[in-house]
Amino acid sequence: MTPEEFRHAGHELIDWIADHRASVEGRRVRPDLEPGDVISALPDAPPDAPEPAAAVLADLETVVAPAVLEVQHPMHFGWFPSNASLSSILGDIAASGLGSLGISWESSPALTEVEEVVVDWLRQLTGLSPEWKGVIQDTASTACLVALLAARERATDHAQASGGLVGESEPLCVYTTEEAHSSVRKAALLAGVGADHIRLVEMDPETRDMQPGDLARLIADDVAAGHRPMAIVASLGSTGTTAFDPIAEIVDIADQHGVWVHADAAMAGAAMVLPEMRPLFAGIERADSVSWNPHKWFGTILDCSLMYVRDPDHLIRVMSTNPSYLRSTAGGEATQYRDWGVPLGRRFRSLKLWYQLRIDGIDAIQARLRRDLDNAAWLADQFEAKSGWEVVAPVRLQTVCVRHRPAGLEGDELDAHTLAWVRAINTSGAAFMSPSMLDGHWMVRISIGVESTERAHLERLVELLDAAVVA
Amino acid sequence: MTPEEFRHAGHELIDWIADHRASVEGRRVRPDLEPGDVISALPDAPPDAPEPAAAVLADLETVVAPAVLEVQHPMHFGWFPSNASLSSILGDIAASGLGSLGISWESSPALTEVEEVVVDWLRQLTGLSPEWKGVIQDTASTACLVALLAARERATDHAQASGGLVGESEPLCVYTTEEAHSSVRKAALLAGVGADHIRLVEMDPETRDMQPGDLARLIADDVAAGHRPMAIVASLGSTGTTAFDPIAEIVDIADQHGVWVHADAAMAGAAMVLPEMRPLFAGIERADSVSWNPHKWFGTILDCSLMYVRDPDHLIRVMSTNPSYLRSTAGGEATQYRDWGVPLGRRFRSLKLWYQLRIDGIDAIQARLRRDLDNAAWLADQFEAKSGWEVVAPVRLQTVCVRHRPAGLEGDELDAHTLAWVRAINTSGAAFMSPSMLDGHWMVRISIGVESTERAHLERLVELLDAAVVA
Repeated sequence: MTPEEFRHAGHELIDWIADHRASVEGRRVRPDLEPGDVISALPDAPPDAPEPAAAVLADLETVVAPAVLEVQHPMHFGWFPSNASLSSILGDIAASGLGSLGISWESSPALTEVEEVVVDWLRQLTGLSPEWKGVIQDTASTACLVALLAARERATDHAQASGGLVGESEPLCVYTTEEAHSSVRKAALLAGVGADHIRLVEMDPETRDMQPGDLARLIADDVAAGHRPMAIVASLGSTGTTAFDPIAEIVDIADQHGVWVHADAAMAGAAMVLPEMRPLFAGIERADSVSWNPHKWFGTILDCSLMYVRDPDHLIRVMSTNPSYLRSTAGGEATQYRDWGVPLGRRFRSLKLWYQLRIDGIDAIQARLRRDLDNAAWLADQFEAKSGWEVVAPVRLQTVCVRHRPAGLEGDELDAHTLAWVRAINTSGAAFMSPSMLDGHWMVRISIGVESTERAHLERLVELLDAAVVA
Repeated sequence: MTPEEFRHAGHELIDWIADHRASVEGRRVRPDLEPGDVISALPDAPPDAPEPAAAVLADLETVVAPAVLEVQHPMHFGWFPSNASLSSILGDIAASGLGSLGISWESSPALTEVEEVVVDWLRQLTGLSPEWKGVIQDTASTACLVALLAARERATDHAQASGGLVGESEPLCVYTTEEAHSSVRKAALLAGVGADHIRLVEMDPETRDMQPGDLARLIADDVAAGHRPMAIVASLGSTGTTAFDPIAEIVDIADQHGVWVHADAAMAGAAMVLPEMRPLFAGIERADSVSWNPHKWFGTILDCSLMYVRDPDHLIRVMSTNPSYLRSTAGGEATQYRDWGVPLGRRFRSLKLWYQLRIDGIDAIQARLRRDLDNAAWLADQFEAKSGWEVVAPVRLQTVCVRHRPAGLEGDELDAHTLAWVRAINTSGAAFMSPSMLDGHWMVRISIGVESTERAHLERLVELLDAAVVA
């Protein structure tokens, strides 16, 4: 494809994107599809002959776009917001268009240094001290794995440099709660910690926050048993109910035993840009690693997960390689982000943050987050005032967890009722919410925070819910 | 940013990308910069007020673009080709513009199913049997880590489900060669295999291919010592010299001991789309996992690494999670790519392959790869015919490894000469090549394969080289 052909097709694609976004509210949130439907609409074999870009764009419109769950739709309340601000999309397009290669400082100085600058801007905006140095990972899942690998090597005095984990005699233990994201358990297992050594700390029955007293007890028991406490993963805003583990008390306990603390603030970390919300995170400054995802509520297009550490030299020692073909003539003073994570080759992800912060501005982002907090409080009030509805977890930020409980309905029958009404709404395409387990029974998470979701959309949601539970 | 503001800024950005690509040959390959130069050109603090998109584009032009090593330049011969075909950039832009979320089939059926289809198209084009199922990872580094985690859990009968690696009594061993990419050692260390248990198999002194006899001996020794052979990573086209480990003989040996074989064809895998090159890969069909990067020579914009496995059920068992908030109403028959890798959230990476294959067509891609093979053979002939120059490794594909050896120069003096001439060219900005170690001494890799590199560019390179070694 020549630059002139690209220019023409690119303009058409930009128009398509602008039109698609402008018309998102008129579409279904969730597509009406079964597994295999998209596959059967596509050829089994690769194309023989080149096709015009317009033909591909036509298929994007007719085959692809109708087959995505429209997370930019103002009636999307599923999982977490996955905002893709148009400003950040511009930055992502710039990254694609540059076609740069991030394998070392030398391969793209700007890719490295714009990342250093923008990651530090976000550090300042979230109130972390200059002691923290950051990097962009793809997701919080990866950030958690990297954090646990760093924790593992600290706990074993760099066993990787000699006999590896099999040579260790004391099992390594990881502490978290049932509320932690599934990626925490996955990261611990992949890091070589067995399922037998993942400790689920008791939670406050009301808030589902980690109980520090139980954490202290579990760690003491493990130490007494000859096990080695390796890491605590604290959820700051859990996926299920936005639980906030008490990070200040956790780091106090961790410090007594030299245990690594990773603060997983994947969704909620965005709230740190609001000074009035920082008390929820008090103590985070003393953790060993922190990650949060601008690609969620904050509005940067996926994938963009910030990870900060207080001891980058340790992280680099765990993750580094220095083959001859990657040695730079620039000497040792340049940051080599390949040594901060798993992949060698990295995209120019910082451009999407750079574009978003410069074009939208932090004031507008803060105002949007505050709007969402207000909307969540308003929505919780509606449910509190309605008969039959329960708000089943404290509303810490922008997620409201509800059940509708007709008189006398309990246990499995209540679960069936919950799943019936949420599926009815989800399959209608009018709105989308995620059912989730709480204490062994289903509830529904209403996760507010799509860029285009205003109060009127929540009013419409309340009407849909009222109609669905009667039907 | 509104859709109309995006439309306007998007058109300007597309024009900038088209102009940038059209004018790439007029720019330096390597920027003339020191670490910190880009940082000092950017504000320390985040912007207070929103800025127009045009201001950001102006900085893209004046601050960012001049500070990347221009890997799309026809005189770029460093590392590996990192082609970003404009067709694949269109697909990447479509992915950004859709703003879709890949955390499950339900979150974006098209994201899952287009990936299944396109990954299978590439399977067909590379001659792998339908037994192989694939996924797109970010990079071959990650694919190698995932492969070694799968190997580890197979070797330990899923130790992660119980006591983890510390509970194992027999050390796990990984076999590869000194020619293997740095990511292989890194993956083994991160997977919990200690450095003491990474075995570097002897290589053929001429080709640097793994010697299967030595592999068999090392495995037998480890078994006799009570160690457990876990995985063999075969380099099919190594980074340094394009060595090809004899994969057919390797899988024969592996089968005797039930050892996992991962075929790392990161760069060279693209050559499998040329039927005449497949003999180099004969036996790959019997490996356990294969990865190669369309984001290198093939021309798909970074990041896009294909990973195929023959036993996806095993991989899924190792990598899966199934929390309640991710359970789909679609039942169990849908592919859940989150269970094929580390990150939960995934971009719509298949669109860049889909666009590229449809717009460029496989015939044109094949013709370009053949052109590069011809160019490499031609270039090697030039050096063979010149006095003072040596081609120091067999030219298997598109990389030509050379030294210039003035009469009598040996050892450290020869190294100093080699680094002097390659740095002179690299810092001039006229061309870029990677110095690399071979048998303890520096040589220079000339990696051919940028989309725009034609014979005339190689003729110019020869002139530059001749001038540099005299200077």
